[in-house]
Amino acid sequence: MTAKFIVIEGLEGAGKSTAIALCQEILKAHQVNFVNTREPGGTPLAESLRNLVKATHQEIMSAEAELLIMYAARAQLLTNVIRPALANGQWVLGDRHNLSSLAYQGGGRELDSSTLNALSNIVLKGLKPDLTIYLDIDPAVGLARAAGRGALDRIEQEQLSFFERTRAQYLAIAASDPSIKVVQAGQEISAVHQDIRAVLTAFLVEQGK
Amino acid sequence: MTAKFIVIEGLEGAGKSTAIALCQEILKAHQVNFVNTREPGGTPLAESLRNLVKATHQEIMSAEAELLIMYAARAQLLTNVIRPALANGQWVLGDRHNLSSLAYQGGGRELDSSTLNALSNIVLKGLKPDLTIYLDIDPAVGLARAAGRGALDRIEQEQLSFFERTRAQYLAIAASDPSIKVVQAGQEISAVHQDIRAVLTAFLVEQGK
Repeated sequence: MTAKFIVIEGLEGAGKSTAIALCQEILKAHQVNFVNTREPGGTPLAESLRNLVKATHQEIMSAEAELLIMYAARAQLLTNVIRPALANGQWVLGDRHNLSSLAYQGGGRELDSSTLNALSNIVLKGLKPDLTIYLDIDPAVGLARAAGRGALDRIEQEQLSFFERTRAQYLAIAASDPSIKVVQAGQEISAVHQDIRAVLTAFLVEQGK
Repeated sequence: MTAKFIVIEGLEGAGKSTAIALCQEILKAHQVNFVNTREPGGTPLAESLRNLVKATHQEIMSAEAELLIMYAARAQLLTNVIRPALANGQWVLGDRHNLSSLAYQGGGRELDSSTLNALSNIVLKGLKPDLTIYLDIDPAVGLARAAGRGALDRIEQEQLSFFERTRAQYLAIAASDPSIKVVQAGQEISAVHQDIRAVLTAFLVEQGK
């Protein structure tokens, strides 16, 4: 059986971390051998790029520079972690992947879809997650939660309208891609977890796990 | 009169630094107001990216990650330095620019020309140097000179064949682009400087300087 690539996506404060912990628990219960990744990051070089892209600098970071740093980190993670794991029969559970760039840089920053598509093709070479769970939340609610956790990074400091565009892009892409499952992350936590469990369990059953 | 963008290119040990010093002297003598840039680098963020791409890491840097870091640095430099300078009537004298990526990542790393073209289009948006002086040198000679200057960085540590492919790509592109002038950098230094002076002075005369 082929190893699968599962990704958790969502805005700041959507509950990605607890969702990932739940998915890890479910995968373990189903005896799935998996590795965890996060983006941007997941290798020493990619983590250095993560630090650069999240930090506030003395100069304005251009939208193209931000985009290219994200894809540089992704290229490194794909080559050194994701592709070797999948080739080795290990599943991959990712905290964000390409959909984040399509949503944040394509939606939030309003970069051309042709630019996003060109970079996706160069870096992914056709690789695509088998299942994406997108945790949908009202940005105002999510940002309030994220702010409660402490200092906001450079991207988290964007205007609400940036996150509204990002969310709209997430939802638009999810609507046309059946491998992306939308979970309402604004519900009570028990209901959110029930929905995540239902989505992931159904996927595992399909895979004979 | 429109501000011009002049770039000095060449392999390690080709004599770029002394060529740049000579060009600065000539531009000053012609009362040209200019800024200096270097790539990768030239802004605080781009210099951080330069350090990452030149350092030796615990992991192998993928060819795509290297390429994307180079273009991220270039995007930042273009947005924050090169375009504002040119818009402000200042000339730009660059130590390397896009041709380095076409030669090193396209030639040396053998990445697809379609990939290089896609990134060039995304980042340059049609901007092109008005004059490029390419200092051509036998890689074996250039590397011996570079090694004499001290420790070699990650890219300088590549095999000779890498630099031979890079040089071949430089020459192939120069052959089809009249804005790229090839100077034989293996000559006596006085002859190299004479050739550089002739190329730059002819260009300045054309521009009415």
